[in-house]
Amino acid sequence: MTKYKNLTIVRTVAEFREHVNRWRRNGETVGFVPTMGFLHDGHMSLFQRSQEIADRTTASIFVNPKQFGPNEDYAVYPRSEERDAQLMDEDGVDLLFAPSVNEMYPDGGVTKVSVPGLGDILEGEYRPGFFNGVATVVTKLLLQAMPDVAIFGEKDYQQLMVIRRMVKDLDIPVRIEGAPTGREEDGLAMSSRNTYLTPEERKAAPVLYQTISAVADKFRQGERAPELIQWAKVELEKAGFKQLDYLEIRDSENLKPVYDASRPARVLAAAWLGKPRLIDNVEV
Amino acid sequence: MTKYKNLTIVRTVAEFREHVNRWRRNGETVGFVPTMGFLHDGHMSLFQRSQEIADRTTASIFVNPKQFGPNEDYAVYPRSEERDAQLMDEDGVDLLFAPSVNEMYPDGGVTKVSVPGLGDILEGEYRPGFFNGVATVVTKLLLQAMPDVAIFGEKDYQQLMVIRRMVKDLDIPVRIEGAPTGREEDGLAMSSRNTYLTPEERKAAPVLYQTISAVADKFRQGERAPELIQWAKVELEKAGFKQLDYLEIRDSENLKPVYDASRPARVLAAAWLGKPRLIDNVEV
Repeated sequence: MTKYKNLTIVRTVAEFREHVNRWRRNGETVGFVPTMGFLHDGHMSLFQRSQEIADRTTASIFVNPKQFGPNEDYAVYPRSEERDAQLMDEDGVDLLFAPSVNEMYPDGGVTKVSVPGLGDILEGEYRPGFFNGVATVVTKLLLQAMPDVAIFGEKDYQQLMVIRRMVKDLDIPVRIEGAPTGREEDGLAMSSRNTYLTPEERKAAPVLYQTISAVADKFRQGERAPELIQWAKVELEKAGFKQLDYLEIRDSENLKPVYDASRPARVLAAAWLGKPRLIDNVEV
Repeated sequence: MTKYKNLTIVRTVAEFREHVNRWRRNGETVGFVPTMGFLHDGHMSLFQRSQEIADRTTASIFVNPKQFGPNEDYAVYPRSEERDAQLMDEDGVDLLFAPSVNEMYPDGGVTKVSVPGLGDILEGEYRPGFFNGVATVVTKLLLQAMPDVAIFGEKDYQQLMVIRRMVKDLDIPVRIEGAPTGREEDGLAMSSRNTYLTPEERKAAPVLYQTISAVADKFRQGERAPELIQWAKVELEKAGFKQLDYLEIRDSENLKPVYDASRPARVLAAAWLGKPRLIDNVEV
């Protein structure tokens, strides 16, 4: 407890709520950044955003079993709580909520929040149940914390849209802010899962960002989606990507297909680079 | 607005929230009674309960289209807002939230809250989607209002259990109170849908309560469930009931089958009396 300048770590919902309630009663606004830990600079920019717009910054680390499929990487997902807490402390985070699985789901937790439509396409198609797990745990975290504002990275763009929609539909009294994707110098989107990349894969990885950026440019200039997607597929294969789950140009808000750049659109992609799977997206 | 002594009627989420927030900021506790209107004395006892345990009493009237099946009675469900408001005013309700369907579901509302297991059995089996509709709208109402306590009648016992479980699972910061079923002098559970009963059906209707009460007594005295259910079925048929959807003895909390009276149990039943369908339940 004494080794942090600023940060307090709590492990129970009751303590988490107590801290946030006390601040809010005192008229301080509270920002909240939910994470799965193993922090990188992308997370740091979320904490900074929170500090710009709220008096207090809270964060959570919870690797949520309910959002991992049976063949996914729950067991091996990288964890480094001590290092994460140090970084949060240096970054001015006031409170870290780091609950156990049992604290979050004391009786197993049967209730499910789902966002049919938005949650079933793209990532939802390739990771069935993923967005149910996300929507349910984010609902819980928001209702535990009741922050003024919660900040999510645009790296997981569809997740951000699912959460916005859910918060609106359920009348959760929290403002949702998106923050730009943090990127390495060569453009690769920062992700805790980048640690899975071999040195060779790491070299090829930025091609995903380069390719979807090129698709966005060309689409803006009037080229058509089917041809662009075909072109991108070939580019990714040449760079060593093994399989493309999807690469789509979609409406920025409802993620439905778009046929020209007259409305705000987004290029979203997920592709396998050997064992690791990368996702990324850019604005058109 | 001026015709009520005590009651204020609001139609938007924003106004509803504003009133409740103001009271809570002033240190007053707030009770909330969600209804579908067409009030009877059963509702009045919920308002009274709220007044006993909270400083302010709020209520809603909303006939929620999402909890009616395509062949159910949404279109003809009895409505009488003016009379309801008068009764609430006389009964000391401070605030009535009576939103339009569009105010509750401005963009259609795609997000769904479901309670698998508890929400799929008994009523959930005979009214598919019913508890999803209930769980979703109750989540919304609770998050709109953020009362200290919400009060639900035990008449809809399974609904009360579904809501308790949902509130716990999602960490909704509201206390849930159940209140005893209001009954007519002859034992019939009060229900807005009793208005559907013909005079002849009305005479037969109390047999449902008499029968499940007898089942509860006999079960307590050691008789076995299968025989009791068979006996009850015959009793109901003799009284003019046309079809029994279910009559079950279940654990009071998780509604799983029980085989003796060693744990708290409940007899729950739904049966058709011609066109109208009655539900009721009693403690063992």
